[in-house]
Amino acid sequence: MNYNILPIVVSILSLGVGAWFARQILRKETGDQKMQKVADAIRVGANAFLKRQYKTIALITILVAAGLFAAYAASGDVPTGTKTAIAFLIGAASSALAGIVGMSISVRSNIRSAAAAKKGMNDALVVALRGGAVSGITIVSLSLLGIACLFGVYSLLGYEAVKIPSLIVGYGFGASLVALFAQLGGGIYTKAADVGVDLVGKIEAGIPEDDPRNPAVIADLVGDNVGDCAGRGADLFESTAAENIGAMILGAALFPVFGIKGILFPLVIRSFGLIASIIGTLTVKAKETENPMKALNRGYWVTSILSAVALYFGVKILLGNMWFFAAGLVGILTSIAFVYFTQYYTEARYRPVKEIAEASKTGHATNIIHGFAVGLESTGITVVTIGVALLAAYKFGDLSGISGGGLYGTAIATMGMLATAAYILAMDTFGPIVDNAGGIVEMSGAPEQIRRNTDRLDSAGNTTKALTKGYAIGSAALAAFLLFSAYLEEAHLKIVDLAKVEVFVGAMVGAMLVFLFSSLAIRAVGKAAYCIINEVRRQFKERPGIMAGTEEPDYSKAIDITTRGALKEMVLPGVLAVGVPVLVGVLLKAEAAAGMIMVGTIAGILLATVMNNGGGAWDNAKKWIEAGNLGGKGSEAHKAAVTGDTVGDPFKDTAGPSLHVLIKLLSTLTLALVALFL
Amino acid sequence: MNYNILPIVVSILSLGVGAWFARQILRKETGDQKMQKVADAIRVGANAFLKRQYKTIALITILVAAGLFAAYAASGDVPTGTKTAIAFLIGAASSALAGIVGMSISVRSNIRSAAAAKKGMNDALVVALRGGAVSGITIVSLSLLGIACLFGVYSLLGYEAVKIPSLIVGYGFGASLVALFAQLGGGIYTKAADVGVDLVGKIEAGIPEDDPRNPAVIADLVGDNVGDCAGRGADLFESTAAENIGAMILGAALFPVFGIKGILFPLVIRSFGLIASIIGTLTVKAKETENPMKALNRGYWVTSILSAVALYFGVKILLGNMWFFAAGLVGILTSIAFVYFTQYYTEARYRPVKEIAEASKTGHATNIIHGFAVGLESTGITVVTIGVALLAAYKFGDLSGISGGGLYGTAIATMGMLATAAYILAMDTFGPIVDNAGGIVEMSGAPEQIRRNTDRLDSAGNTTKALTKGYAIGSAALAAFLLFSAYLEEAHLKIVDLAKVEVFVGAMVGAMLVFLFSSLAIRAVGKAAYCIINEVRRQFKERPGIMAGTEEPDYSKAIDITTRGALKEMVLPGVLAVGVPVLVGVLLKAEAAAGMIMVGTIAGILLATVMNNGGGAWDNAKKWIEAGNLGGKGSEAHKAAVTGDTVGDPFKDTAGPSLHVLIKLLSTLTLALVALFL
Repeated sequence: MNYNILPIVVSILSLGVGAWFARQILRKETGDQKMQKVADAIRVGANAFLKRQYKTIALITILVAAGLFAAYAASGDVPTGTKTAIAFLIGAASSALAGIVGMSISVRSNIRSAAAAKKGMNDALVVALRGGAVSGITIVSLSLLGIACLFGVYSLLGYEAVKIPSLIVGYGFGASLVALFAQLGGGIYTKAADVGVDLVGKIEAGIPEDDPRNPAVIADLVGDNVGDCAGRGADLFESTAAENIGAMILGAALFPVFGIKGILFPLVIRSFGLIASIIGTLTVKAKETENPMKALNRGYWVTSILSAVALYFGVKILLGNMWFFAAGLVGILTSIAFVYFTQYYTEARYRPVKEIAEASKTGHATNIIHGFAVGLESTGITVVTIGVALLAAYKFGDLSGISGGGLYGTAIATMGMLATAAYILAMDTFGPIVDNAGGIVEMSGAPEQIRRNTDRLDSAGNTTKALTKGYAIGSAALAAFLLFSAYLEEAHLKIVDLAKVEVFVGAMVGAMLVFLFSSLAIRAVGKAAYCIINEVRRQFKERPGIMAGTEEPDYSKAIDITTRGALKEMVLPGVLAVGVPVLVGVLLKAEAAAGMIMVGTIAGILLATVMNNGGGAWDNAKKWIEAGNLGGKGSEAHKAAVTGDTVGDPFKDTAGPSLHVLIKLLSTLTLALVALFL
Repeated sequence: MNYNILPIVVSILSLGVGAWFARQILRKETGDQKMQKVADAIRVGANAFLKRQYKTIALITILVAAGLFAAYAASGDVPTGTKTAIAFLIGAASSALAGIVGMSISVRSNIRSAAAAKKGMNDALVVALRGGAVSGITIVSLSLLGIACLFGVYSLLGYEAVKIPSLIVGYGFGASLVALFAQLGGGIYTKAADVGVDLVGKIEAGIPEDDPRNPAVIADLVGDNVGDCAGRGADLFESTAAENIGAMILGAALFPVFGIKGILFPLVIRSFGLIASIIGTLTVKAKETENPMKALNRGYWVTSILSAVALYFGVKILLGNMWFFAAGLVGILTSIAFVYFTQYYTEARYRPVKEIAEASKTGHATNIIHGFAVGLESTGITVVTIGVALLAAYKFGDLSGISGGGLYGTAIATMGMLATAAYILAMDTFGPIVDNAGGIVEMSGAPEQIRRNTDRLDSAGNTTKALTKGYAIGSAALAAFLLFSAYLEEAHLKIVDLAKVEVFVGAMVGAMLVFLFSSLAIRAVGKAAYCIINEVRRQFKERPGIMAGTEEPDYSKAIDITTRGALKEMVLPGVLAVGVPVLVGVLLKAEAAAGMIMVGTIAGILLATVMNNGGGAWDNAKKWIEAGNLGGKGSEAHKAAVTGDTVGDPFKDTAGPSLHVLIKLLSTLTLALVALFL
């Protein structure tokens, strides 16, 4: 049996399901004219941004592809150069396509979810989640289809199965590169707009969030789409692609044991996960009075359990050694663990967020200090979970009795963790859709009952956004470990000896890259925000009719300034992320490069955890105070909490998520260039 | 010739010079009664803190010593357990003694420097620097004397020279443990008081710094002594001790080449460095109109050049291979590089601080974001400098043609870097002395001219405090690399293979420890500060006469609350720092422990750099605005800058410096316990 047929068929069918969801959504009602006006402005702004962004990314991608080819050609290996460059371009194009499809449905689902909120909370929930599922399914299917097709084509061309995974590593690198810029650009955009709205609107002018008088308010709503939706989509596209390729390389190393089944196993498991996610999405339905988060969690459990069952049969049929099922279960459990402890660190009912809120009473500085402390603290449970997962998966793999089974165990744990990716992505994109729906309802002055419905969904959306970041970092960590092993395999390295001076220096540089990159990313937000703040102030000053409500602010000018700022600022950190690893690899060679990606990954996991959880906790501490605690809105504690939220914004929505991508880029890049480091 | 005589003689003579400096200072005039009253309050408060602190530390030290002995005894090796525990206790006691001597001179030098300021700036400068030199000389001499004596005693007992370094590793661990608690406790104390003074005094009550109406003002002045002076003293005591032991172990590995000379070379170079530092101190003299920093820098250059010359002859006579001189020069140059780029990141005349000040115009949040970005950015040059230094020193050592010469090259670079330690420590302790002198002058209402003199010195003191932190982190990095190598030597490990799953997990845990420790350290400041803020508010509220100036605030109550808070809060991070490495070593074994200390060190260097430089830059951005820029004191920009400074305080004065110590503790602890990890 040709196991490669299954992923191709499943991914094409899944794309069909995605299209069916999209058609369903597009047929839904689009609300009144006021709503449509707001939604149109968001859509136009988001499209304008994406168009410009992907133009820039296309240019960079072509340059890098040319560089890749030239580097291999210069070292005398034109065929590898050609194959790597082509795979790279296909990976980049697929990632971009997935992002564009997801986004274009998401900016159409928001108004339909808002309109559905008239009928009830559940209707709005279902529209938003299916809108999100279009993203999730498209992303995972395209990633799977791309790799399965490349594998198929090379098979038909007569290449040996064990050699093919190495030929398509460029695909992962292409996906990484696009993801990096998509996440960076989107992340800078969304937070620059958000900081601008918060600082000038809430604090200086004293008007509420989503107030139509604020010139940056549409830019802010656009930002939710281009940052959270397109950015995280590209991030997980990359994770799934990189995991597939890494696991296939390890499978190839076990060819004597499993034959081609070991190589294609990752694609089969991904196919099952996709089906499980679609079923999970379809089961979600909430009672009107229920917390929508409960309904979403039910869908997640359905997906997880189905994935576990599929994993059981997959292992039984293809590998025939049930220790690998245990390793896969470790991955699924890790995913659940991340979802739960991320809640602990970012939800107001637990100690960390309360601590920050409490500290806001003594001012801005103590709010910041405690938020930062919470972020740092949350690295503890993160590292322990990843550490236990790696050790356990390795142990189970080792117990299989197969030489090299330990590593393959960690690969299968990663597959387990990523099996639910499409559902997680649906939950993630659900966030910006309901956030936008809330904004549309607010700005169009809809009745109180509808607002209540969208507010409840918005609150659930904030939770899902935080959860998926936790999931993204956990899966990035496991995938990265897998990619190291693949890299060592490709570089013919048996060890990475950190006691060698050049490996240690490479390791330091890897960690430093993470810090420097974060500096550039958050500073970029500061710079772009600075422009918007000045623009909003200018509009308020020059046109006093705006605040009086007699004159409409110039939304498009604010969008334009944000777009230009974000795209300009994403270039430098992106270039750094690509340039430094190449430099280390060329100057200090393959083993030092291995030290760099490993320790860079560790530093990246930790710093991203600090930023994601610290940022999420600051955000919810502010919301908790706004809900009327500790003096509520307008109190001194609230002002301090707004400062914390504003600081946390670029942490959790720009630098943090970009670091997930950077981690994987380090691995896919070195994997694609390994021949030059020898 | 017995090369061990030289260090013993030099360190005893140096202690004599220290005593002579102290006598000189104590004979100086002590100013008027008002000044004496303030100075007495500081001295009493500092002594009370130190007494309680060292009681707690003594208890912990004895427990750890017992644990050390018990662990070795349980594994059946009573003799090693006894030797390690005894060396540990001697190291701990020497470190504590050095801290106490330094502090007791420093709290007597402050008022004498204040009184000398009546005569002129230079008089005050000389008193303060010599006061600092008492600390510096005592610390370096005691560290040297302790190791040289232990070496001598074991020689007399008939042990082979090559075996002795391993027997005295406990000394380094003892010094580390005391340093950790001294720095943590002092750091928490100083910043809790500082945050309290700033938030309630400056922001809420609108009274200036060092205003006698603020109940926490004396606690703040006490803090400068116990944090900067005693804390950094213990830090560099540990650096010098750990470097000596690590280098001696590597020297022992080269016994076939250099014989005993290679083992004792580190002690000889340290002796020369001590003499160079004393001469450097004696040459410092400033013109009345000159920037005092220039005079201090001249002394530093004299010390550096003399050290280089001494190194030249030391290498020529003892090792006879001039490539090692080149390696040593790398260390001296690294030290100079750190001193200069730390200035770039923390002084107001350069871009980073200006950027933060500029960002303060748009509010608290942008100030924080940019300050954090500056801190993250500064890791770039730090890592590049350390990386180049390690590679170059290794290369030079390698060129010597001696097998194992590369590593010994890095050891000699570390010796070069630490040769100037006593002078650097004098500059460092100079900081709190002149800070206190300024406070005394201010609180005693002395005339304008005297204030101008102490203000100029205070500003130079802020610079020296920042510089020595840069120096401490750089030397900690080099010393740590040396200690890894010593650890591998002791653990009989040839490699540290990061690709092994347990080593990778150990590495992650090492990095996580650094983050978790920092969380506890800065949160401790928040907690302690919270108490003081409430206490100051209570005093202001219950006794309105304080603000009117008719009633004296209760200083001792504020000191007492700070002391209790600081000592309570230092325990948890300290226990974590000791417990986690032991756990990793016992559970995951020696190679994983090596991964842990190496990657923990990298993470520690980076995070400490972020915190030290970010904190320093925030501080000086505030000072720059206070000097009248961007609206000056009381402007909105100033309020935002005060927030940044307050956030930066626990970063740069508690967590950052404690991380320097933690890095070395990781190494000395594993080195002392290595037998249990095999």
